Amino acid sequence: MKVLVTGGAGFIGTHIIVCLLERGHDVHVLDDFSNSSEKALKRVKNITGKFIRFTKGSILDGALLSYLFANESFDSVIHLAAFKAVGESSTNPLKYYENNVVGTLVLSRAMKNFGVKRLIFSSSATVYGDGVQMPLTESSCVQDPTNPYGRTKLMMEQILTDLAKSDPSWDITVLRYFNPVGAHSSGLIGEDPNGIPNNLMPFVSQVAVGKRDKVSVFGNDYDTPDGTGVRDYIHIEDLALGHVKALEKQNSDQRGSSRNIKIYNLGTGRGYSVLEVIEAFSRASGKKIPYEIVKRRPGDVAKCWADPSKSELELGWKATRDLIQMCRDAWNWQVNNPEGYE
Amino acid sequence: MKVLVTGGAGFIGTHIIVCLLERGHDVHVLDDFSNSSEKALKRVKNITGKFIRFTKGSILDGALLSYLFANESFDSVIHLAAFKAVGESSTNPLKYYENNVVGTLVLSRAMKNFGVKRLIFSSSATVYGDGVQMPLTESSCVQDPTNPYGRTKLMMEQILTDLAKSDPSWDITVLRYFNPVGAHSSGLIGEDPNGIPNNLMPFVSQVAVGKRDKVSVFGNDYDTPDGTGVRDYIHIEDLALGHVKALEKQNSDQRGSSRNIKIYNLGTGRGYSVLEVIEAFSRASGKKIPYEIVKRRPGDVAKCWADPSKSELELGWKATRDLIQMCRDAWNWQVNNPEGYE
Repeated sequence: MKVLVTGGAGFIGTHIIVCLLERGHDVHVLDDFSNSSEKALKRVKNITGKFIRFTKGSILDGALLSYLFANESFDSVIHLAAFKAVGESSTNPLKYYENNVVGTLVLSRAMKNFGVKRLIFSSSATVYGDGVQMPLTESSCVQDPTNPYGRTKLMMEQILTDLAKSDPSWDITVLRYFNPVGAHSSGLIGEDPNGIPNNLMPFVSQVAVGKRDKVSVFGNDYDTPDGTGVRDYIHIEDLALGHVKALEKQNSDQRGSSRNIKIYNLGTGRGYSVLEVIEAFSRASGKKIPYEIVKRRPGDVAKCWADPSKSELELGWKATRDLIQMCRDAWNWQVNNPEGYE
Repeated sequence: MKVLVTGGAGFIGTHIIVCLLERGHDVHVLDDFSNSSEKALKRVKNITGKFIRFTKGSILDGALLSYLFANESFDSVIHLAAFKAVGESSTNPLKYYENNVVGTLVLSRAMKNFGVKRLIFSSSATVYGDGVQMPLTESSCVQDPTNPYGRTKLMMEQILTDLAKSDPSWDITVLRYFNPVGAHSSGLIGEDPNGIPNNLMPFVSQVAVGKRDKVSVFGNDYDTPDGTGVRDYIHIEDLALGHVKALEKQNSDQRGSSRNIKIYNLGTGRGYSVLEVIEAFSRASGKKIPYEIVKRRPGDVAKCWADPSKSELELGWKATRDLIQMCRDAWNWQVNNPEGYE
């Protein structure tokens, strides 16, 4: 299949295109490199031995999208392009709504105009808000997310749901990610955050390598076994395969044979606390990882993990890599690329 | 005050600008006339004796907005421009998200760029979804609205809420309308729906005047006193005054003295059933109004009425016109303008 991957040069995108190329698909990346690097695509070429076609540009550029759809025969789109910094989304919400929500509308309009109606959409467990009942299934209540970034994800899901309902010829799959971490086993591609990492594992990794002094643990008085927040971490290679399985499922399903919007959790089904992650990373890296307990961050939930059984049943997909593997691969990437792609 | 009114030539807009002009404000209308008529603005001039400044154009046109904000010194914006046909929003959701949500983003960006940060926003009781506890207060739970039109309204509220939270120099008032009906007491301006009216009172009015055979009553098996749906109808002149009160309140409040996003219900606090409306309209018009009971419409809620006490307390505003007045004024408009503005 020939697939347009928006945001394909990012952390998640590069791992997906490796997986797509390895499984024989044809890939075209659209990325504005506002939060990613062309070097990442060169590394994908090193891993796969395949040339990566890409266009530098924004999903907000309707004319560019028309040009691409008119000149390439895409079978499907994997739509990852989005801003993702939770903190920045609170200080500059317009930027997030303009890029994420408007970008999805511009992309959907181009797809509709050119009759490309298969879409895999990158969503997030953030749409479950402060869900109390674990594990989260796809039919768990979605709630007002705790920040504007999360709201853009929920709005995009709602828009795509209405679009699918309005026209049975669409086939849309929404993938709700839990916490993607780790890196490719080659150590050639991985997460390369700008500035101070928002997420735990890249932060821990930078402490282990000596770039930062200690990990700040945001609260140890949550209602969890050790008091620190519990999350469902998922290895980025498992997550990537989930996308390709979803894509292949769309292709093999008969059109009109079932509902035309489907939602799947991509998680492992098991939660780990912040302290467990620090401990595992310490073991994987052989480094001491100092930490200090600081106060809770507003908007953080106590715990969050997936019920991934629907994905296993319907997509034939299951995460297979454990926390130690995630830490080992993150560490391997960190040690070999202490400054990321620079 | 000098006020930009987007969508100012529509049913609600024309009544608001009459009220603004009568209270000494300066008005500039932006309307693309996609669902309204320049003739309505001429009628406003007939009522008020004042010249109406207007620009024909769309809120999606960022360059036009920049031009307007650069050349006029607006104190505030009343933002009404939006598509509003519930049924069409389900068949063509992209059109609704593109116009309503993107339009609000383009407008907000222009306001931010030019430092005009006072906004009155036109929302709807539809954001309460299928609320079970009546009356609805502003702190009643918002729920997933039952159609894409409603979702655009809720998304716009959420975007404006995040915008206000991110920057204390904004002052945003969200007005949640219940069911605006009636017409100006002069009979010169009123509701002029395209095609088959979506809403009850314009439909009833067209039956009374002989343009349609009978009213379809969508379900008489709801859990309401006579089994038909109960709504909080509000006279359009009362609704218009609510906007002007909210505008004047923003102006008189000291900046930073309180929260910078406020939400108010605009309703009467009393619900009437479909059959009660038909009966009242028949009395007001002196016409027999045949009706038939048909099956429920998907997405209709059983009952919906406001608790308007917060608006009275904080805005000093209260609806004063009763159902008979609403019907009399709607009928007066209908009889004098059987083809609307054409």
